[in-house]
Amino acid sequence: MSTTHQFEVWAPIPNEVQLWVDGQRHPMQREGEGWWRAAVPAEPDSRYGFLLDDEDRVLPDPRSPRQPDGVHEPSQLHTLDESTWTDGDWTGRQLPGAVIYELHIGTFTPAGTFDAAIERLDHLVELGVTFVEIMPVNAFNGEHNWGYDGVLWYAVHEAYGGPDGLQRLVDACHRRGLAVVLDVVYNHLGPSGNYLPKFGPYLADGANTWGALINIAGPQSYDVRRFIVDNALRWFREFHIDALRLDAVHALTDHTAIHLLEQLSVETHRLATHLRRPLSLIAESDLNDPKLISPRSAGGYGLNAQWNDDVHHAVHAAVSGERQGYYGDFGSLSCLAHTLKHGFFHAGTYSSFRGRAHGRPIDIRRIPASSLLAFTCTHDQIGNRAIGDRPGSYLDAGQLAIKAALVLTSPYTPMLFMGEEWGASTPFQFFTSHPEPELGQATALGRKAEFEAHGWATDDIPDPQDPETFTRSKLAWTELADEPHSRLLECYRALIALRRERPELSDPWLEALTVDYDDDERWIVIQRGDLRLACNLGPDPVVVPVGGAPILWWDKPDPDETEAATTIPGHSFAILDRS
Amino acid sequence: MSTTHQFEVWAPIPNEVQLWVDGQRHPMQREGEGWWRAAVPAEPDSRYGFLLDDEDRVLPDPRSPRQPDGVHEPSQLHTLDESTWTDGDWTGRQLPGAVIYELHIGTFTPAGTFDAAIERLDHLVELGVTFVEIMPVNAFNGEHNWGYDGVLWYAVHEAYGGPDGLQRLVDACHRRGLAVVLDVVYNHLGPSGNYLPKFGPYLADGANTWGALINIAGPQSYDVRRFIVDNALRWFREFHIDALRLDAVHALTDHTAIHLLEQLSVETHRLATHLRRPLSLIAESDLNDPKLISPRSAGGYGLNAQWNDDVHHAVHAAVSGERQGYYGDFGSLSCLAHTLKHGFFHAGTYSSFRGRAHGRPIDIRRIPASSLLAFTCTHDQIGNRAIGDRPGSYLDAGQLAIKAALVLTSPYTPMLFMGEEWGASTPFQFFTSHPEPELGQATALGRKAEFEAHGWATDDIPDPQDPETFTRSKLAWTELADEPHSRLLECYRALIALRRERPELSDPWLEALTVDYDDDERWIVIQRGDLRLACNLGPDPVVVPVGGAPILWWDKPDPDETEAATTIPGHSFAILDRS
Repeated sequence: MSTTHQFEVWAPIPNEVQLWVDGQRHPMQREGEGWWRAAVPAEPDSRYGFLLDDEDRVLPDPRSPRQPDGVHEPSQLHTLDESTWTDGDWTGRQLPGAVIYELHIGTFTPAGTFDAAIERLDHLVELGVTFVEIMPVNAFNGEHNWGYDGVLWYAVHEAYGGPDGLQRLVDACHRRGLAVVLDVVYNHLGPSGNYLPKFGPYLADGANTWGALINIAGPQSYDVRRFIVDNALRWFREFHIDALRLDAVHALTDHTAIHLLEQLSVETHRLATHLRRPLSLIAESDLNDPKLISPRSAGGYGLNAQWNDDVHHAVHAAVSGERQGYYGDFGSLSCLAHTLKHGFFHAGTYSSFRGRAHGRPIDIRRIPASSLLAFTCTHDQIGNRAIGDRPGSYLDAGQLAIKAALVLTSPYTPMLFMGEEWGASTPFQFFTSHPEPELGQATALGRKAEFEAHGWATDDIPDPQDPETFTRSKLAWTELADEPHSRLLECYRALIALRRERPELSDPWLEALTVDYDDDERWIVIQRGDLRLACNLGPDPVVVPVGGAPILWWDKPDPDETEAATTIPGHSFAILDRS
Repeated sequence: MSTTHQFEVWAPIPNEVQLWVDGQRHPMQREGEGWWRAAVPAEPDSRYGFLLDDEDRVLPDPRSPRQPDGVHEPSQLHTLDESTWTDGDWTGRQLPGAVIYELHIGTFTPAGTFDAAIERLDHLVELGVTFVEIMPVNAFNGEHNWGYDGVLWYAVHEAYGGPDGLQRLVDACHRRGLAVVLDVVYNHLGPSGNYLPKFGPYLADGANTWGALINIAGPQSYDVRRFIVDNALRWFREFHIDALRLDAVHALTDHTAIHLLEQLSVETHRLATHLRRPLSLIAESDLNDPKLISPRSAGGYGLNAQWNDDVHHAVHAAVSGERQGYYGDFGSLSCLAHTLKHGFFHAGTYSSFRGRAHGRPIDIRRIPASSLLAFTCTHDQIGNRAIGDRPGSYLDAGQLAIKAALVLTSPYTPMLFMGEEWGASTPFQFFTSHPEPELGQATALGRKAEFEAHGWATDDIPDPQDPETFTRSKLAWTELADEPHSRLLECYRALIALRRERPELSDPWLEALTVDYDDDERWIVIQRGDLRLACNLGPDPVVVPVGGAPILWWDKPDPDETEAATTIPGHSFAILDRS
């Protein structure tokens, strides 16, 4: 059914823009501030794109809703079918109290699609998590990718199931009471398929780790910021997303009086009021700056939460003994205790990895710890190791259980990475599938060079472009029934259930948390109301000076007759109840 | 089935406390800080109470869950049947975006019970409101009362259906997507049935408008504060309440470093994290102090919202022309415009009614207007008029519609009072039913004297103790089908639907609101995004200098051909769309 469609594109750079619809060219009118418009008959699924000046190539729409043939080809009109939603009674889910589960659509299941992920949602419900966090699904170059190479931020990767598939997944989550976090990347564009700079000044001078800076503060950045903010709001409004995870916000350089993150916060709050459900913004931040999670009336940006790497580093280094790279300042139980008690370890103090002071203290009496996400596995912390090996390949199951207990009894908002709950044996490696041979080779060489510099042999580093690297990273669901996986899964379920049952565990006020530890004997005891989490990080049994009825453990603890001490087996934890 | 029950009561005053269970006396043991305990066999519905020192009277439990025979008789053990809840998938409802409906259980329906209220919930769903606010249901003296005379704050008034009835109502609301606000009174105790001072130092020296001050800051106030905070948390936890309306917080005198309201906010946040759903605190406040609704990290108490009388006064005085009492500073359109734009009218400025400076400005760039409740009818604003007459008895339907439009298109959180939506013809009068003749007479005389001082004839003032005063105040649901009620109801429905549909109407950022008005011609135009609300408060047609397509009105407006002006009939409003 052909109807007149109003096409528009922001393209202040070219002197002429033509619209291309299903093979036909149409003139466009330039209106104020670089917007070009044309009203042209089109089908609901017409292919379309734009021709800039005298170039002959049809470019995709920067705001394309769909890229059926990849990021280099024309866009396709698309609107979601509103009638298929079944979540009309969904009133949203607030972030405080959440347990988050991060997953990558392509490797979460063998099929690697949204629909296949739906089949596994009941596993998540039984596990007890309440938010599903989906790694970026925006359109990127090639079939397989972590998602951070996106170039068309409004489109949904076709191999996953496209926009309709994402709609089905969100709807299925809501039907099961699961909220959905979507990972979005606004700090750079991928290395292939980025035609945005031909349209307008999307890029600024300079580069961050992943690419050219985005022009969010320079001349003509008004519409670049709108491109970002509109994108964020669209996920909430059209796809019923509950929260966004903002990738690497430390790479968003903005010196204007109203930081992009504050603008996002204001507009998200406005939309949440209209939609009458909580919409949350969660930053990935390497800044250790409480400003991000402080309310705007306290001079902050008003984001709801941020990832907290310090808890990861403190737990990981203490349990594993690793000290390389950014783990350098971490590892002691005193560091672990301090971090658990204060949220940030580096809080205006010297960071040896950075060679400078880093961070600022959080006012723990006023900022709830639920604003910080705590985790011991993420796509980055696993996938950015040289060989993408999970902790289970170098730690025993008891050590994995200790890490789980530290996070899942913490005042922070816990997050798991897919497969962590059963100590998945599969790696999560860095994979790409750039069709362009030169780009593929450059990516592979860059990856290998990075780790060679740290003493790895080239041959040991998986080739990101090798399809096997992607396939190898898929979860092996069949191993769930085997030891030690099934036992670890039970432990995760029990920890999450206990967190749900006992209010003291999710208590977000850090004032109430106290820690005792012994760095020589390698035990740490964390007091949470009537409960005590006692962890023995060493290999041999140790006596901790705390009693109580054991209600959950990895290896059975042995309380002494005075009720003032308990023996914890090596590489184990116990939760003791003194109520 | 008799089992051992652990009875306990905080009673630091008496030297001896005996437990009374179903006619049998049992000794109690005093433990630290005035708590008395006894483990005694009891039925699930045993009657019980306490005997203090050598007094022979069985007193009800200050924390009594049930008072089957009124507030002077023994308490009854009671626990809710957890298996009857059907709201397991309820994830709560955030306050921003809400439209609240205040009702009084006794007069909302002819039967005056929770169960009868359930029968009317579909009317509320069709109307479009999202929160039901229930006037106090705690146990009070006599059968009928507004509820602010409560003396046993944990019990639910039996005539309404007791605790089980409240459970059924909340469950029925949640099944329909309606959240529930419960009105709770922590600033005084009622004039009869208050035995608390015999148990402990619940009262402080001095009195507020309604009774003796509560000891929330003096010696031994720790357990008085726990009595209050535990009460609040219990409604959330056991009765699945979504928000509390805290009655007259300006009467909570607390000079300690952590105000009771901040303590409530901290503990509510903790519980909300555990329950994983939004729990909101809404203050009734006469302070105009932004501290109440500022986040704790900005030095505030962290409440979610407060009632805003200034918007009421500004709208009511402008539309009705009334200027008596506290309306003295209000009435002009300039005052109405200022109040709509800034939230508070008195914001560090002179209040003639008070003879002093009042209030403090709100930082409208950082505190969303959704934190302020706006209304033109409440139980107080109607019921505390001499004869409890609703605006419909002295204003025409067009004027009622203007008031509705001003509130329901505002950036504030709108609240209606039951029956307002059809301009109910029934009054809402002040009624009591004290069984004690002297108390009844004193109450009636006090009421009459109050209004005689303002020039009313004694015989015109309804007798609060007259059962007819209560009966007269019940809504007459049969009038809904008649004019002008049905037309007004349609107008309310259309306004609420438009608020739902158009995001600019609920936009809580006051920065975006602009107002134009003419005090001589008595029109005011409020700009909300692409929409304009044009109101003509005078009786004759007036031309307002704004165009746009009329999409909702009371009497049909007449846009002129220039699209720059519109004629609004007398006592009417129109919403014009310029998108």
